[in-house]
Amino acid sequence: MSELRKDPITRRWVIIATERAKRPSQLSSPSPVTPPDMPARDPKCPFCEGNEAMTPPEVAAYRHAGSQRDTPDWWIRVIPNKFSALDTDTPLERIGEGMYDMATGFGVHEVIVESPRHNHTWGTATDREFEEIFWSYRDRLINLMRHPALRYVLIFKNYGKEAGASQPHGHSQLIGLPVVPKRVLEELESSEDYFRYKERCPLCDVIRQERADGRRIIHESEHFIAFAPYASYLPFQIMIMPKHHDPFFERMEKGQFMDLGRVFSRVFRALAEVLGDPPFNCVLHTTPPASAGDERYNHWHFEIVPRLTKVAGFEWGSGFYINIATPEDAAEALRAKINECDEAECSAAHAERK
Amino acid sequence: MSELRKDPITRRWVIIATERAKRPSQLSSPSPVTPPDMPARDPKCPFCEGNEAMTPPEVAAYRHAGSQRDTPDWWIRVIPNKFSALDTDTPLERIGEGMYDMATGFGVHEVIVESPRHNHTWGTATDREFEEIFWSYRDRLINLMRHPALRYVLIFKNYGKEAGASQPHGHSQLIGLPVVPKRVLEELESSEDYFRYKERCPLCDVIRQERADGRRIIHESEHFIAFAPYASYLPFQIMIMPKHHDPFFERMEKGQFMDLGRVFSRVFRALAEVLGDPPFNCVLHTTPPASAGDERYNHWHFEIVPRLTKVAGFEWGSGFYINIATPEDAAEALRAKINECDEAECSAAHAERK
Repeated sequence: MSELRKDPITRRWVIIATERAKRPSQLSSPSPVTPPDMPARDPKCPFCEGNEAMTPPEVAAYRHAGSQRDTPDWWIRVIPNKFSALDTDTPLERIGEGMYDMATGFGVHEVIVESPRHNHTWGTATDREFEEIFWSYRDRLINLMRHPALRYVLIFKNYGKEAGASQPHGHSQLIGLPVVPKRVLEELESSEDYFRYKERCPLCDVIRQERADGRRIIHESEHFIAFAPYASYLPFQIMIMPKHHDPFFERMEKGQFMDLGRVFSRVFRALAEVLGDPPFNCVLHTTPPASAGDERYNHWHFEIVPRLTKVAGFEWGSGFYINIATPEDAAEALRAKINECDEAECSAAHAERK
Repeated sequence: MSELRKDPITRRWVIIATERAKRPSQLSSPSPVTPPDMPARDPKCPFCEGNEAMTPPEVAAYRHAGSQRDTPDWWIRVIPNKFSALDTDTPLERIGEGMYDMATGFGVHEVIVESPRHNHTWGTATDREFEEIFWSYRDRLINLMRHPALRYVLIFKNYGKEAGASQPHGHSQLIGLPVVPKRVLEELESSEDYFRYKERCPLCDVIRQERADGRRIIHESEHFIAFAPYASYLPFQIMIMPKHHDPFFERMEKGQFMDLGRVFSRVFRALAEVLGDPPFNCVLHTTPPASAGDERYNHWHFEIVPRLTKVAGFEWGSGFYINIATPEDAAEALRAKINECDEAECSAAHAERK
């Protein structure tokens, strides 16, 4: 029997079509986003090491000692988006046009190139590579949030054409805005409502319930939990967040960065293996520092959505979704794959020691 | 210079990338959804006349006098969705699962086959054909809203694979739900806020402002207005609604049905000609009769979105959109095409009379 489920944060109702639910194998990507024969370097790719001159000058980079700006020998490189619709040279003005509100195109749009290698993917990245990506997120967040006119910094990754990526070379993007995006604002407002009623953070309550139930948990580490949300609106939707209440991604401790790297490498390897390197989107929701948002009820998190099915426009015209896979099945498949990989590694390490 | 614009109803901020704005010709569909050589009948299509036995028994139809249920000789036919995730045999139960809310899969999912002809499209439909489609919407709304457990009836059309259609034969869909979809609820809430502040319906204010400005108007008839919304989140987004306040689609008068048919045939012919028969989604937002919604601030409308660009997942993960076409350019192109067609028809009619 199908079920209607409501997400406690977004308040979205979703049909979970349990009766005609698809198995993971029926959902997997028709072809891998990054084929195994993709070269490690593409002479025409602006994000590849050696092609630094093809991009605008870098705004930040993690480089090996002695290397020069806009030359090779880096492992993460942040550059302005060449086709940005926003810039900080435009003075920010907020203007009323009759009953409408507008603002000038003030803002920042940057690209975080995640590796000098063209064929680097999240499905094969190491713990340490993820950790470095998260450090770069943190550094840009701290740097840009100093700007008094930027009210929110949105960090996201589109992987694969189906997910909106225009470059195959692995990268994240960052958009700094003079306004708070609708979905983020909705979450803040809805969390505030919940807090007023219960005096508890809603995502802390979600974690408690998910840990007690267990069916939707994908992975747990010392500091983090990865799970399939109860009212997942798309198949294999994943949330990753700190187990203890924390409003600000950028204030994580060093040990947490390491731990988060381990969680991502496990979850994304499993996702790539179970679904055949599918396209996906990953969005970081953290608390805007300049907002009136109360730190007691905002809980930072990553939202990850593989793009396995076509989303009909009526779904975003109505906010009503039909999900043809259950989060319980998705979590089970990913959890089993993580355990299998961990065991394989463990016995490999064991064999090595012998 | 780019602009940030905010929609007064959905409260969504959108970047209108005016600087690198695409012309309509750069946006048009790579190939028409319905190619000119598509046959008028497909022996394998369950929606074609003569294939009535391939569908579940019809729940309603407009038939020529003397024709029998589930046989040929109809012009509109409504059938249950064969793969529905919802049914009304399931008793409706609302259940709390810890902090989560769920309900059993109670509801209705129907298909409105819009023509016996396989190659019938909205880009070529006549005034009268549209009028009949709207009568069928109205009849189903009235019929289903009698059911006390159905809180909302969502009517929408997906045209083309890119827009989520699984059958090429022209059809609309209807989903009757025991809950109100998120976007509809948001609109009701936001309109209520506006009304409290101004004591006016927000969409009535939008119409006043659009008519005074004129740049975004696509077409106006006696009763209706078609325009490109100020903060369009996708290129060539269109709103069509009554010029005078009206909360309920199903309560339109006969003359309004005829007029709405004329507006749709003009707008969709122009859309098909300007953009090369693109995929699109059309969603009807009308007021739920059983809701606590106040009739003073809800204004029914159609939201139409051609699917010309890939929507990156971050856009619906964040609610923040970048639109690479301005609504002013879109409206101008459609307005000019409608005038051109009207003039061509006028001179054709003139020539005939001579």
